[in-house]
Formats: sequence, C-alpha cells, structure tokens
Amino acid sequence: MSTGKPIIVLVKPQLGENIGKAARAMLNFGLTEMRIVDPRDGWPNPSAGPTAAGADSVLEEAQVFATTAEAVADCSHVYATTVRKRGMTKEVLTPAEAADDMGSASGKCAILFGPERSGLEVVDVELSRKIITVPINPKFGSLNLAQAVILVAYELSKMDTIGTVQPTVDKKKKEPAPQIELDRFYEHLERALEGTGYFFPPDRAPATKVTLRNMITKPAWTNEEVQTWRGVISSLEKPFVKK
Amino acid sequence: MSTGKPIIVLVKPQLGENIGKAARAMLNFGLTEMRIVDPRDGWPNPSAGPTAAGADSVLEEAQVFATTAEAVADCSHVYATTVRKRGMTKEVLTPAEAADDMGSASGKCAILFGPERSGLEVVDVELSRKIITVPINPKFGSLNLAQAVILVAYELSKMDTIGTVQPTVDKKKKEPAPQIELDRFYEHLERALEGTGYFFPPDRAPATKVTLRNMITKPAWTNEEVQTWRGVISSLEKPFVKK
Repeated sequence: MSTGKPIIVLVKPQLGENIGKAARAMLNFGLTEMRIVDPRDGWPNPSAGPTAAGADSVLEEAQVFATTAEAVADCSHVYATTVRKRGMTKEVLTPAEAADDMGSASGKCAILFGPERSGLEVVDVELSRKIITVPINPKFGSLNLAQAVILVAYELSKMDTIGTVQPTVDKKKKEPAPQIELDRFYEHLERALEGTGYFFPPDRAPATKVTLRNMITKPAWTNEEVQTWRGVISSLEKPFVKK
Repeated sequence: MSTGKPIIVLVKPQLGENIGKAARAMLNFGLTEMRIVDPRDGWPNPSAGPTAAGADSVLEEAQVFATTAEAVADCSHVYATTVRKRGMTKEVLTPAEAADDMGSASGKCAILFGPERSGLEVVDVELSRKIITVPINPKFGSLNLAQAVILVAYELSKMDTIGTVQPTVDKKKKEPAPQIELDRFYEHLERALEGTGYFFPPDRAPATKVTLRNMITKPAWTNEEVQTWRGVISSLEKPFVKK
C-alpha cells in the first residue's frame, strides 16, 4: 500500500532490532512504506517484531530488494542520508530542508539509510540526487539508525500538517525520470565511452565512473530529457560503432 | 558545568539504559546538563554507561534531586513534555515552537520528561509554565523517552547555529559554473553533433537546440562537472573526427 509519502529504504541493515525500531520511528510520524536492501540476517527477521512495538504493519508490508538500484528503480527523487563529507558536489540538506524539498516534489521519493556501523557506501550516495545530513555536535556525533530515521520522519510529518496540495496533472510532464531510466542512461554512456580511451588509465576508471553517475543523478531530468541525452550519445557513438 | 543551554530533567526514570540513551541523544545536539529526579534504581546506575555510547560526561555531571520542584528551583522557564491532553489551560507547544520560545527566553530553561511508562504526573505538569507535545500519528503514538529527548534536543540545536555542524559543504566547490562555461560546453556539444545527423531534419534543429541548452543549464553543474562533460563529448567525437 503506497501512501504517496516518502519511502524509507534501509540499505544492508545488520540487526533485526534496528529494523523494528526504524519501523516504530516511521509509524510514529505516519510513514508506512519501508524497503529493505540485502538485510544481513535475511527477511523476515524475528528480532524485528518486538522492537517495532506495534508497528507490525510496516514490517509486514516491507519489501526486500537485492540491490539499492532495484529498491529505488521507481523513485524519481532519491536522497542519501550520510554524515560524512564526501567531496561531492551534490546538494546537502538538513532534514527540515529535505522535508521541504520532498513536499514540493512530484514523483515518488525515497530516502536511503545505510548499515548501522558503516553508513551508506559511495555507490549508494552516487545514485542519489541529494544528501541529507543531520546537523550534529561536532564533538559527539553518535546517531543510531532509528534515531536518524525518526528525525527525518519527524520533519516530514511537519510538512504533512501543512497539507501541501499537489497539482498532479500538470506536473506529470515535468516529473523527474525514475531511477531506472537514469541507470539505463548511465549504462549507455559507459558503453559508448568504453572503447574511446575515456576510461584511461584503468585505475582512475572507478572514480571517473562515480563522477559520471553523480552528474547524471544531479539534474532531476525528466524522461524526455533523459531520452534526449541518450539520443545525443547515440549520435556521437554511431561513427565509432561503424568503424 | 552549565552551558546556558536548556536543562533536561528526567523525572523518576525507571531504566538506567534509558538514562544513558537520553544522555546520548542530548550530546548529539550539544545539550550537556541533565538532572534526574528520584530515579527508581538509584544513582549512579551501571546500566546507563553502555547505552550512553560515549556521552559519559553528561552522566558524570548529572545531578540528582529528590523532587521535581528542587530540580527546577533555579530555572526561570519550565516546560513539561507530555502527549496526554490534560484539560489544562497552559499553552501547548510543538518542539519547534518550544525551541523558539526558549531561544528568546532569559534565565535558565528546564524541560521535564516523565517516567517511561506513565509519563509526567499532574503535579509535575502543574509546576511547568508551558507544555511541549510532539505531534505524532494519532493512530500510532509510541515515542520512548530517548526519542522524545532527541526530538526536543534536535529542535533546540537548530536555534544554536554555532554549536552544531551545519551541513554547509565547501561552497567554492558547489558553486555553479558561470554561464560562459555552459555556453562553451553547449557550443562544443553542438559542434560535435553537427556532422552526425543529429540535427536532422533541419527545420526541427532550432527546437532541438533549445532543448539541449535547457538540459545543460538545468543542473547547475560546477566548473569541474562541465569540464567532465566536455571530456565525455571529446572522447565520443574523437573517432568521428578521425574519419
């Protein structure tokens, strides 16, 4: 059951207890849609129920995915929560700013939360459009998973009470392309560049690919725009393919 | 040690674990002064340390009082956190409103949190000037003590921009490229596409060019990102140029 509210995506969570706590945190503020990526201890996890403290419906309806990319394939806006500075050029929002951002967004929104110890990996941040960072004490930053979820959910619930009216029909055309289209575009671009020497030297290639992905996820291009870019790349690669 | 920041008062807390969690929640948002009223299991409580997760200084400096009245004797503004409607005529604030209220208050502020199960007693609410209520899901209200503390502490930290790390990333790096760089990129792209048949049929070309320009100006790419795109285009056009 989708409520149209943002989706909480737990990426590789370790402890079932924390999944339960996250569910409880969500439901306190009216969020009901949880997606779980590659949970360490499988799913369902009997440890999750007790800590959900009654938020069982969230756990029961949670969907499990093998990869983050699959979990957000249908989402137009993906946000990564992280505390680390990553030298990225993506916009960094506070939870309040992110709530505001999502309040005016059309298309599904997903918020990624990383594993308890390590947080999100670069590859997850890469596919996100924006970053959410909770401003914490520089001398003591120790937010656990459920706490990060509750702060974001709390801010989102504020938007709810304001009751933002979505002019759905007109926005349809402007809606950002779902993540899967960005993935396809990226794969196309990488394929086109493969034989051109662009990814030389090979040891720089991984970093270069991260940069490209980041540039593609940043603009919130519409489906049409993504198709236009693909047309551009196709036109440019054609002569090469013909060689 | 008083920081002049609001004091968190735990009234008759039951579990040491929750006192530790509350300390952790506080310190994440720069609150350091905890007062404990008549803790069920005495004080110090060995169960508190592990859940404080490093916020030991808060526990070590916590002061214990026999009654709420004594705990807030030196405070000019006392706020009671409660979810229950009490038929009282006191002003009820959200955490955000309360933070605002305290931000402009002179004199010490104290915020009371009740025991885990029962919440604050009438007598505690009575001595408070105002009530803080976290707006939660009417169908699922299940905030625990540390969660209530963290939400209030989080809102308070917004008032205090010096104390917490604001996610303002390296502005220099984030600054969008000047328009001239976008123009150059566009010209480069158009040149690269010119001989490929992309702008066919000719009467559609002007509209297509507008579309391309719009896609380039939309993302607010940085200088670095624009250069990366130019590198991509160069790599793709090279084989064609060589023909």
